[in-house]
This record gives sequence, C-alpha cells and structure tokens, in this order.
Amino acid sequence: MTGRRFQLYDTTLRDGTQQEGMVLTVEEKLAVARHLDNFGVGYIEGGWPGAVPRDTEFFRRARTELDLRSAQLVAFGATRRVGSLVSVDPQVRALLDAQTPVVTLVAKSHPRHVDLALRTTLAENLAMIGSTVRHLVQAGRRVFLDAEHYFDGYHVNREYALEVVRIAADAGAETVVLCDTNGGSLPDEIKAVVADTLAATGVQLGIHCHDDTGCAVANSLAAVAAGAVHVQGTAHGYGERCGNANLFTVAADLVLKRGIEVVPAEKLRELAAIGRAIADLTGVHGHPAAPYVGSSAFAHKAGLHASALRIDPNLYQHTDPALVGNEMRTLVSDLGGRSSIELKARSLGYPVTAGSEGVARTAARVKELEHRGYAFESADASFELLLREELSGAKPELPFEVTSWRVGVDQLPNGTVRTEGSVRLSVDGMPLIASGEGSGPVTALDRALHRALEPFFPDLGDLELVDYRVRVLQGEAGTEAVARVLISFRHGDRRWGTVGVDENTVTASWQALLDAFQYVLLSTPVLARRATGPAVAAAS
Amino acid sequence: MTGRRFQLYDTTLRDGTQQEGMVLTVEEKLAVARHLDNFGVGYIEGGWPGAVPRDTEFFRRARTELDLRSAQLVAFGATRRVGSLVSVDPQVRALLDAQTPVVTLVAKSHPRHVDLALRTTLAENLAMIGSTVRHLVQAGRRVFLDAEHYFDGYHVNREYALEVVRIAADAGAETVVLCDTNGGSLPDEIKAVVADTLAATGVQLGIHCHDDTGCAVANSLAAVAAGAVHVQGTAHGYGERCGNANLFTVAADLVLKRGIEVVPAEKLRELAAIGRAIADLTGVHGHPAAPYVGSSAFAHKAGLHASALRIDPNLYQHTDPALVGNEMRTLVSDLGGRSSIELKARSLGYPVTAGSEGVARTAARVKELEHRGYAFESADASFELLLREELSGAKPELPFEVTSWRVGVDQLPNGTVRTEGSVRLSVDGMPLIASGEGSGPVTALDRALHRALEPFFPDLGDLELVDYRVRVLQGEAGTEAVARVLISFRHGDRRWGTVGVDENTVTASWQALLDAFQYVLLSTPVLARRATGPAVAAAS
Repeated sequence: MTGRRFQLYDTTLRDGTQQEGMVLTVEEKLAVARHLDNFGVGYIEGGWPGAVPRDTEFFRRARTELDLRSAQLVAFGATRRVGSLVSVDPQVRALLDAQTPVVTLVAKSHPRHVDLALRTTLAENLAMIGSTVRHLVQAGRRVFLDAEHYFDGYHVNREYALEVVRIAADAGAETVVLCDTNGGSLPDEIKAVVADTLAATGVQLGIHCHDDTGCAVANSLAAVAAGAVHVQGTAHGYGERCGNANLFTVAADLVLKRGIEVVPAEKLRELAAIGRAIADLTGVHGHPAAPYVGSSAFAHKAGLHASALRIDPNLYQHTDPALVGNEMRTLVSDLGGRSSIELKARSLGYPVTAGSEGVARTAARVKELEHRGYAFESADASFELLLREELSGAKPELPFEVTSWRVGVDQLPNGTVRTEGSVRLSVDGMPLIASGEGSGPVTALDRALHRALEPFFPDLGDLELVDYRVRVLQGEAGTEAVARVLISFRHGDRRWGTVGVDENTVTASWQALLDAFQYVLLSTPVLARRATGPAVAAAS
Repeated sequence: MTGRRFQLYDTTLRDGTQQEGMVLTVEEKLAVARHLDNFGVGYIEGGWPGAVPRDTEFFRRARTELDLRSAQLVAFGATRRVGSLVSVDPQVRALLDAQTPVVTLVAKSHPRHVDLALRTTLAENLAMIGSTVRHLVQAGRRVFLDAEHYFDGYHVNREYALEVVRIAADAGAETVVLCDTNGGSLPDEIKAVVADTLAATGVQLGIHCHDDTGCAVANSLAAVAAGAVHVQGTAHGYGERCGNANLFTVAADLVLKRGIEVVPAEKLRELAAIGRAIADLTGVHGHPAAPYVGSSAFAHKAGLHASALRIDPNLYQHTDPALVGNEMRTLVSDLGGRSSIELKARSLGYPVTAGSEGVARTAARVKELEHRGYAFESADASFELLLREELSGAKPELPFEVTSWRVGVDQLPNGTVRTEGSVRLSVDGMPLIASGEGSGPVTALDRALHRALEPFFPDLGDLELVDYRVRVLQGEAGTEAVARVLISFRHGDRRWGTVGVDENTVTASWQALLDAFQYVLLSTPVLARRATGPAVAAAS
C-alpha cells in the first residue's frame, strides 16, 4: 500500500471540538487548519456549515484566508431530512454553499438509531443516503459517507449495514467510513467487520474510532490491516468522552512501525512542534504521556534505565525521538538517584561523574525538596541553580539582596481593581525601593523587580514571563496544603522554568520569580553595572 | 478461562512510580495498596527492597499495617549479580527479608542487553536466572519472572528468548511475564509472539506492556487472546514515558467486553471512586478522557448527541457508566446549544424545555462567557446561578452587597509573610467591615467573607473551600492573557464548583468565591438573620 493512495483524514475542527473544555474561535480554527496542512494530512474536516454558525463563518473565511498546500478542505453534514426533497433541503444547501471540494455526510447504519433518533423507516434512510450523495456528486463534490454506529449496527443487522455501504457507493460516494461511534469495540472485532464488509461490498473503506475501551489507535490499525485505506482521527485525540483516535499516534505508528508513508518522514520530524502549536491554540494540552509527542514520551526516571541510557539511549527507547521531533529527557528525581542527576548535569554542560560528592549532595537536596512538594522536572533553571550551589559547596554570590516585598490588591468601590507590588532590596549594599503595577500579584512583583534591577543589569531587559501555573498539593495527614508554582520564562531565544513551593501562592510565586532573576544574572555576563544613586521607580 | 485462574497484577507502587511528577511516601504507598486490594487485584507489587530505601521500609511496615484481603504482596528485584553466589547476594537477601509470599524477578531476555547493560555472557545470564529462581523457591517463595525486552529480544534471537522462559520455569518460576519494556510493539506482533512462546514452551505466561505506540491496552488484550493468563498494569496507566498498560481499562475491558471476571462485578462498580482515591493520594490525576474512570469518559457535548440522549442514553454510550461507578454528564457549551442546556437544567431540577425563552437566553449567555474564557463544565454552581438569572429574567436578589475588598501580602524583613484580606459590604443596608488572614489571597478573602456573613447566615458555616485551580489562558492576538480560576467547595455532603475569569488572578478568584457564597444563600433556607449592629471582626 503506498502513502499516496492512503488517506489521513483529520476531524479536529469538527469531532475534536466536542472535547470537554474546548471552544475555538474562527481565527483559532483557521490557525489549527494551517498546522494540520503543514503536517501533511490529506483532508481537513472544518465543521458543520448550516448547523453551527461559527462553522458557516469558518468556511466563508477559509475561501480567502486558507491557502492549503497538501490537504483538501471538507464540509461535514447530515443527509437530507426525512421525507423532504434534497434539492430544497436547507442543510444540504449549506453544505454546497461551503464550497469545499469534498463533503462528508453522516448517515445512520444502525436500525435502532434509524427508528429512535431519525424516527423513520429503514427504506427511507437508504433513500435519504442515496439521494443526498447523488445530489452532491452531481453538484461536483467528492463525497465521503460516515456510517454512524456501523459496528454496533453490523452486529444487530449485518445485511442492513452492508446495504448502507452499497447504496452510498452506488450513488457515487468515493469512500465509506465505518464509524465506531460509541467506541465500545476491540481490535479483533474491528478487523473482522472491516474485512467482511470489504469482501461483501468491494467498496473503498475508511475507519473512524473513539477511545472508550482504550483501543482507538489499535482499532484504527486493525482496520488498516483489514484493508481500510482512510483513517479519521484528531490532533492529540481530542474528542467527546474518551476522545477520538489520536491521529498523531496513528500517523507515527503507520510510518515508523508499518512502513506506510502517510506523511513524509521530514514532516513527521515536526510532529511534536506541530502538536505543541495546536495545543497552544486550543488551550487543551495533550496528555503529557501521549505517545511520540507528549512531554513525557521519552522521559526516563528509573535509576536502572538511567544507568543503561548512559551506555546507549536505544536500550530503553522504542524509536529515536528525533524522528518525531521530540527529545529524550532525564528526570531529576530521588528515584533515579545519582545516575539521573549525572545525566542531567552533563546535559547542562557540567562535567560531573555519578560518584562525585557534588552529585551526591545534589541528589540528597532534590530528594528532600521533592518531599516538600518541589518538582524540578520542568523547572530546569531552579535545578541548575541548586546544582551549582551543591557542586561548588556554597551559595552563589548574588549582586543583589532582597530586604522585603509586598503586594496589595484593592477593589475600589467603583469596581476597578488595582494591583501593586513593591520590593526593597540592595545592590552592592546600596538600598533601593521599586514598585510596579500588574494585572495580578505575579506580574506586579515581576515589574517591580525589573524596575529595580534593570538599570544595573540591562540583560534582564530580555527576561519575559511567558506562562504561570499553580497546583495545590494536598498535604499529608495533619499538614496544610501547599501551592507549587511553576513559571516559564523566555530570555532571548531560550525558554526555561523555575519553581516555588509554599503554603502561600504569592510566596511560592515570589520564590520562582527570584530564581529566574538569579538565573539570568548568574548565567549571563553582567554587561554593565551602573553605580547610580538609589533608584525609586514610580508605578506605571 | 475463569476469573479465578486469571491473575491481575498491579505494579503501580513499583513501575507506576516512575511516572513523571510522582513521588510517594511510605504512608501513601500503604494507602494506595489498600485501595488496590479493595478493588480486587490478585497481586500488588510493592517496590524494590534493597535498591530503594523507601521500599525496604514499605515492606517492613506492610507486615504489621497492611491487612490484605484479596491480593498477595509481591517484592520486586533483580537476579543475583554476575559471577556471584546467590546465597550471599545482598539484593537477593533483601528480597527474602521483605517477607512477601511472592517475589518477581526481572531478568534480561535480549542478547544486546545481556552484553551491554549486564556485561556478561548469554550463558551466565541463564545461570543467574536459574540459580536465583531456585534459591527463592527453596526459601518458600512463589516466583514470577519478568522477561525484560522479551518482544525485542525474540525478534533478534528467538531461541535465546525461549530459553530464558524455559530456564525460569524449570527452576520453579510459576509464571513468566513477557515484557514489552520499550513499548514499541503492536497487537498483531504481541499476539503472534505470545502464541508461539506458549506453544514452544508450555509455560504459564503473563504480559507487561507500555504505551509508547498507544496500544498498551490492546497489546495486553491481544496477549490474553493468545493465552496469557496474567496481566500487569498500573492504576491510571501511571508509568515512565507514555506509561504502563492502564490496569483499570484492561480490567473493565476484560469483564465488560470479554466476559472474563478478573474482578467481581460489584467491585467494578467502585472503579471510578477507587481511581479518584488513588489519584488523590498520588497527586497525579488520571487523564480526564481515560476510558471508564475519566471525568469526561461519559460526558456529552455535541448537540446531535444531546438530542438523542434525551431519547435513550444508550444510543451514544458503549456501556452503562454505573457498571464502573461513573456517571453520564451533559456538558454546557454553545456547541451543544439548547439541547445541552435543557438536559443540564433538567438534571438540576428545573422543568424547562429546549424551546423556552429562558433556555435560549442561557445558551446565549454561556456562549458569550465561554468566548471570554469561562468554562462551566466543572463550575456547576456558577452555571446554576446564571441559569436562575436567565430563567427568571432578573438578577437574584441577594441579602448582601459588596462595596469593596482588598488583599495585602507582605514579606517582612525577618522573612515571614503575612496575608490579610478585608471586605466592606452591607447586609440589608447595614455597613460591615471584616478581615481575615490566610495562607494566601484566596483563603484570606474566604475567611473575611465568612467572618462578615456567618453571624447573619449560619448556614455558611458549613461552606468549605476544598480545591483551587488556576489556568492562564493565552489571549487572541492583541488581547492580554486572562486567568481562569476554578474553586471546588464542600457544603454539607455536597460538592460543587464555581468559576471566575479576569486578567487578575485575585479578581478571578474573588468572583468564584462570591459565586459560592451566593449559591449557598440562594439554595439553602436562611436559618436566622440576626439584626445585630455592624460586625467588625478582627483578623485571627
């Protein structure tokens, strides 16, 4: 089977948006489509014009704003209504008005659904499919048919399910997509039903799976093994309930494990980056443990593994992370012990050995701090500060010292809220006060620190807070919950994170902020240190 | 195959703790073990005594503090060292000292790993397996052997892989567990290798999978289909990289889809609750979209589905959520439109119809607020306040009015941090000021509100803040990021949530707090409204 004939069909913008917590604007949908096109999927289902106003708008704007290179845009919709004339059906009209080269129609293939949800006869359902497909084909569209609840329907009435496939194909549908709509099937059943349907009808088949048994990817692969040449899925497996088949995983499995080139190898190398870009747009982050693209997908913690990884990374990796644009990470944790610390330190450029005193001290500190709620796995800057301290055996000498800080948030009787942070510190013994306003405590303190220190250390001008996360950790019996704050920063073209832990979220945030300022001052040369008088900056 | 013969083997406490972000205390491990035992797994692997000090301590305490009813406790460890005598090997000694009825030994079955990681000969590796298994069996232990990298090893040298299985069984190992350690296999390969190994050796086999191709569950099921009678996995699929096979999903699939009673049906009904309890202990929450137990596993958003669900929930569900202790949820979202709002309103006890004006107004408000960053899916109290307002066509009349509020967080020069919140409000026109200290801005404001209002509304005394989450939402081009705050409360035996959105995290938190106080006052009868003078409460 060649990649060219194979169809990778993305439904992130339609079925994927049923994902809990996802609401996309038209702007965001257009941006997601561009990333999917760049990845190399064959078809992008954009939405349901006519039914969802935002989707109608999406297709209107797509005509001028979306310049797809590899993908065909698809409008999704239902067959004509029961007992109506297809030529005057407003929904079918809306599908044509979307002006896409391809239309995917959803149709019932389960007798119970025809009866209860559609409230019509089995014969009328077939007529609705035939007439709608024919109408769209005559209007110059390529048509795919999504046979809803196909597998459940097949088990209830095999003949009727097969008849749906035949009727659609006879009317001109190019591909009939067998949908495991409720997601309850397992790979062996999928394989058997696809194989039988293909043998009985000879129609070109596709597969659409959901993950309710945890088998959406395996079900999709089983269908391909049985002869399906079109696989539907979504970015990160977004979708209702347990989600759709994760198209990223399916694509990487097909290319790397099955040798079916559904996307070019060089595009697969961008997969992790494309995944991150799409998650940033949707606001729904993929599972960290997601195969291939997850931030943990190639992260190692076990001491046993860490030792072996020093010998050869492939001993504990099923594939080279670079092939999907991801990277191996060694997690700093007391479980991994000295081997992990050594690997991490080496990756940061410190030429240490696992047997050294400094590595032992760092491992002990990490263990103790993790016990208190710290997590260094995504706080690489905080870890590096700690590592330096333990390797040198002394706290690094900082060019400034904090005396005190405060934050005030006031909602005035007129409803406006004002947040002001202020810091008292000294630079080389010279006392300073600075304050800053912000949209919240963290940005206010961040601005106050910038205002106090930038005149002395211009390099801090490039330090930018880009993301802020808080997690409340429940304490063990008898202790109070603590907040773990993780802050991501950009400094020049580098991006790194810091961590703070405290019962008080603002104090935890302050720790993480201070680590960031210290990290910049320790890792970059001091360009200038102007010995001016005490700077008292006003709030902006 | 009967459930009794079948072995469900949990390795949450050993392989699961390799999960990124998970660090468990001995106390927490003991608590997790009790939940797993209650669920009905056959074996609980507690850790690696001798190698991890915390695990040695775990087994010591388990002897007196763990009273397992259905599970057998298992100690995990490696075979004796290269060229050493098993009877004096300290690691093997530590395994015996753990005093568990069962020991699982990990052993190499891949020639390259024997060579590179173990640095010994293929013959010595076999001798290490044989002598260690025999030694433990002679000491009265039941022994399982984890054949590491079995599938990769089998493809390189089938004969050697089979020899590892035979040697272990000959020495007395009860079950040999074939491990897809790097997680790169697909179901068809797993099935073929398990079937061939079983036919060639006749040894009782188990399976241990990782999810690096997204197929850990399907791979486990494929091995069972090929004759494996022992399945290893972890709660929520915790584990290194992409995680281990999710034992919850595997168990539910085997019982509900394959009819293999690996746990009693009545225990399966506790699955979701057991999953939540374990996640609370580990601090690593399962994926919301996880099959069966995820909070989204039976959550419906699509308008099409919502309409059909009103007719019969089973039209869009693959199984009854009650069978795994979960429940169907209808998500409030503009995608689902009026049908979703109607379903949700009805589930809250409001007898509305989709065509009503109030439902239309609510749908429009939800759509507009979601566009601004609100999410009502887990903020049911905030949704109900909004619903009431739109159904009645007017803002609910509240017995108090807020004039202003403020929060101050001060770090004093001695390092201590003090957080004080204060509110100015009026109850029935009577002005009040109250303040409270807290471990952060939210708890300080929460205490100030309690102090101001409880004297008038004693029912608020039962309102307790139990969880607090902040998410920073990146704005569309040109707009600033906003923070979405979700707060969970307990009030008596009910638990519900509220939401607030603002550029300022403290303001967003205040909105969510205020919704909670309003919700209690609107949904519970006012027990007493004492007309005392202005209450000025001191900070505690």
